[in-house]
Amino acid sequence: MAKKIGVLLSGCGVKDGSEIHEATLTLLALDKLGADIVPIAVSKQGDVVDHAKGQAVSEKRNTLSESARISRGDIIDAARTRARELDGLILPGGLGAVTNLSNFANKGYLCNVDPSVGKLIAGMIDDKKPIGAMCIAPATLAGALRDIAVEGVKLTVGNDPDTAAKIEQMDQVHVECAVDDCVIDEEHKVVTTPAYMLTERISEIVPGIEKLVKTVYEMA
Amino acid sequence: MAKKIGVLLSGCGVKDGSEIHEATLTLLALDKLGADIVPIAVSKQGDVVDHAKGQAVSEKRNTLSESARISRGDIIDAARTRARELDGLILPGGLGAVTNLSNFANKGYLCNVDPSVGKLIAGMIDDKKPIGAMCIAPATLAGALRDIAVEGVKLTVGNDPDTAAKIEQMDQVHVECAVDDCVIDEEHKVVTTPAYMLTERISEIVPGIEKLVKTVYEMA
Repeated sequence: MAKKIGVLLSGCGVKDGSEIHEATLTLLALDKLGADIVPIAVSKQGDVVDHAKGQAVSEKRNTLSESARISRGDIIDAARTRARELDGLILPGGLGAVTNLSNFANKGYLCNVDPSVGKLIAGMIDDKKPIGAMCIAPATLAGALRDIAVEGVKLTVGNDPDTAAKIEQMDQVHVECAVDDCVIDEEHKVVTTPAYMLTERISEIVPGIEKLVKTVYEMA
Repeated sequence: MAKKIGVLLSGCGVKDGSEIHEATLTLLALDKLGADIVPIAVSKQGDVVDHAKGQAVSEKRNTLSESARISRGDIIDAARTRARELDGLILPGGLGAVTNLSNFANKGYLCNVDPSVGKLIAGMIDDKKPIGAMCIAPATLAGALRDIAVEGVKLTVGNDPDTAAKIEQMDQVHVECAVDDCVIDEEHKVVTTPAYMLTERISEIVPGIEKLVKTVYEMA
């Protein structure tokens, strides 16, 4: 039977939401495996960045509605999602993963994780179900794990020393990783890959994301 | 030397802009081939659809800024793009391809094509450079070709009889096509594939898009 894998989105666009290519390639890898894909998003009024100008604008947008652009309309609110309804969960990157799923972008290791996200991640850990996270999303995952006193989880964001230090300040272990690989913490069933943290080329993020998705699917 | 291939976007999201998966998979296929990718967008105040609710909202958004979400900030205005600077051009689908690149969605075969889009397509045809279009975008392409008295071009939108009839009313030839294939008009160097016109599964649109991109790249 197809396994149900949640894909947790945080808006639509690398500068204020989910990174579109990472999210799309996650959906593709899951569909190739025959997964029952469950697109999930937080629902809040998120900040907006004009992606052509690279500048913040005063507008706010609902992250659930924006995330649904990536999933072609199929979306459920993270606050209404139970871990028991999923077999695995994957967090694509993009700045929204550290501004809408948590406030890591502003607060660093002192970040607060969105309650619905924290609860969902806690439920996955309690049920010993696998979690994947890519790009900058492992920083939010690190905070969510710290909040439930799960420590020493091996995570990667590639090789950025600043972000790695903050992850270690949240009591997790940062492991350097190449873009075409992923870091697998077998004990906690947590899989992470650097994706766009380490490249600007879409073709180079494919192997790491495929490896992450396959590992999460097999663990589920 | 890497060939320069323009990817003409119309916003960000299947219901009011470019279809995100089609556009992303186009960028991926081009990057795999080593292409020099040139993301292009029309710049206008486009209608907005809430993708979670599937309902139009009163807001307007700039299609250039929204398109830049798909291309991670790298975007140029179609009005400032010359055919002589490109070796090929590809139009992903999504409703924006027939609401922002033209008004085919409302006007059918009587549609007006956005002037910057019409001029760019005319330039590609004059220079005998290849054009690819997927999903519903061939309808706008049909109008742009009609506007410069280029007739009898073989195009596909899959097997939708209503859209096919409108394409024929614009003096082009509709050819039925499976989702994993594309229709190649060798004479006019025009390549089209149905993509999401014929499936709801992302994995099923990959072969047709890869074939289209490879054909355009080889013709360029």
